[in-house]
Amino acid sequence: MTVTLPPPCVILVRPQLGQNIGMAARAMANFGLSDLRIVAPREGWPNEWAIKAASGADWVLEDARLFDTVEAAVADIHYLVATTARLREMLKPVVTAEAAAREMRTKTAQGLRCGIMFGPERSGLENDDATLAQAVLRIPVDPRFTSINLAQAVLLTGYEWFRLADTTPPERLDPGNTWPASNAELVALFEHLERELDTAGFLFPPEKRPAMVRNLRNIFMRAGLMEQDVRALRGVVTSLATARVKKEQG
Amino acid sequence: MTVTLPPPCVILVRPQLGQNIGMAARAMANFGLSDLRIVAPREGWPNEWAIKAASGADWVLEDARLFDTVEAAVADIHYLVATTARLREMLKPVVTAEAAAREMRTKTAQGLRCGIMFGPERSGLENDDATLAQAVLRIPVDPRFTSINLAQAVLLTGYEWFRLADTTPPERLDPGNTWPASNAELVALFEHLERELDTAGFLFPPEKRPAMVRNLRNIFMRAGLMEQDVRALRGVVTSLATARVKKEQG
Repeated sequence: MTVTLPPPCVILVRPQLGQNIGMAARAMANFGLSDLRIVAPREGWPNEWAIKAASGADWVLEDARLFDTVEAAVADIHYLVATTARLREMLKPVVTAEAAAREMRTKTAQGLRCGIMFGPERSGLENDDATLAQAVLRIPVDPRFTSINLAQAVLLTGYEWFRLADTTPPERLDPGNTWPASNAELVALFEHLERELDTAGFLFPPEKRPAMVRNLRNIFMRAGLMEQDVRALRGVVTSLATARVKKEQG
Repeated sequence: MTVTLPPPCVILVRPQLGQNIGMAARAMANFGLSDLRIVAPREGWPNEWAIKAASGADWVLEDARLFDTVEAAVADIHYLVATTARLREMLKPVVTAEAAAREMRTKTAQGLRCGIMFGPERSGLENDDATLAQAVLRIPVDPRFTSINLAQAVLLTGYEWFRLADTTPPERLDPGNTWPASNAELVALFEHLERELDTAGFLFPPEKRPAMVRNLRNIFMRAGLMEQDVRALRGVVTSLATARVKKEQG
C-alpha cells in the first residue's frame, strides 16, 4: 500500500527578515504548500512584517512551527533538499528545481515525507545545515547575477512542485460566453463584405478580384474570429455601407 | 536572414510600490532580462526603494525607461503578452508561463520583439491596457490562493524564458575535486572490511557469511561512494581494527 502524503514542507533556516518569511508563505500558498518550519529566525516569532508580507496567506504563518535546530526541524523528513547557490564540495548530487520537484513527487507517492530547506538571506546554508540533505538544489540562473531573493527561491521550488501535477493546457480559450466562429459563419461574413465591396466598386478590375478576395479572407482568417466577432464585423460592414449610401444620397 | 533579438522586455504598468519594481529588476537579472519599461509609476521615478530592493541589479533600473502610456511603452513590440489572473472575456488566447516563453523564443528567433506586461499590484491590468497584447498569460496557481506578488510574477515568467534555453543537467555531481569511486576501489574497501570482520569473528557462522557480506556491500553501494569517501572509510576500518587489537592487548 502506498500513501500519498501532503506536499513538501519548507524549512527556513535562520531567516533574517520577517518580510521574506511572509513573502515565502504567500509563495507557498500560491502553489499549494502549507507546512512551514522556521529555525531560529533573527527577528523572533511571530513577526508582524511577516504577516503583512503574506498578503492573506495567514494560515501558512499561523500553522508555522518554530525550531531551535535544523536537526529538530527536519526530524520526520525522509527526503530533504538543501537549496544553495554556493559550491561546497558536499559530495551530494546537485539537482535543478525541476529535478528536485520530480524526485519529491516520486518520494511523496511512496509515502515518504519531503522537505526543501533554505538558508539565511545573506549567507545561505552552512555546510553543517545541509548534512542531513539527500541532495543540493541549485536553481539555474544567469551566471552574471546569481543572487536570488529567499522568497523568490521558495516560489520557484513551489512552482516546480505545482507545475508537475498541473493539467492547465498550454493555450486555451478565454472562458467568455462565446465560441470560435464556424466556417459557415465566416463565409457568410466574407460574402457579406464582398457583396458590399462589389457594390462599392472596390473589387475591381474583375481579373484581380479573386486575389483581392483571397487576401481579405486571409486577413480575417488570421484573426481567429469568434462568433461574437463575426456579428460585430457584420455590423461594421452594414454600418459603413449604409453610411456610404446615405452620403451618396445626401 | 533571421536575427535573434535580445530577451523580452518587461513592462510594468502603473506599479504602486518601488520595492516591487526593484524586486522585479532583481528577478529579471537572475534570468538574463534587462529591458525594463515602466508606465506611470505611482511613486514617481527614480525610486530609492526600488534601488534598495534590486540588491545589486542596478543596471536594470538605470537602463529602465519611463512612459506615460502603455501604447508608447509597447510601440516597438511585435508579440506582447499581458499577464493577468482575472477573467476578462478579452477573446485572446490564454497561455501558461511556459507556453508564453516558448512562443517568445520562437518569435525572438524570427527577429520579432517580445514583451511581457504586468499590471498594478492591487488591481492588475485593465482591459484597455491589454488591447495590444497578442495573448493573455495566466500563471497556473493553486485556485485556493491566486494572489501572486508582482515581482514573483515577473520572476516566474523570466524563469520560464531562461529555463527553455538552459542546458543544466537535471542532476550533476558537485564539482569538488573528487570523483565517484571505481568498482575496483569499492571491492578493495569491501575486502578490507570483510578481512577485519573475519578476524574479529563478526562474519559468523560460515553459512551466513555470504548473505552478511552481500548486505554490507549493498549498504555501501547505495551511498554512491566517491574516491575520497573510500579513502576515509578505509581509514575508519583500520582505526577501529587497530583500536580493538590495542584494547585486546591492553
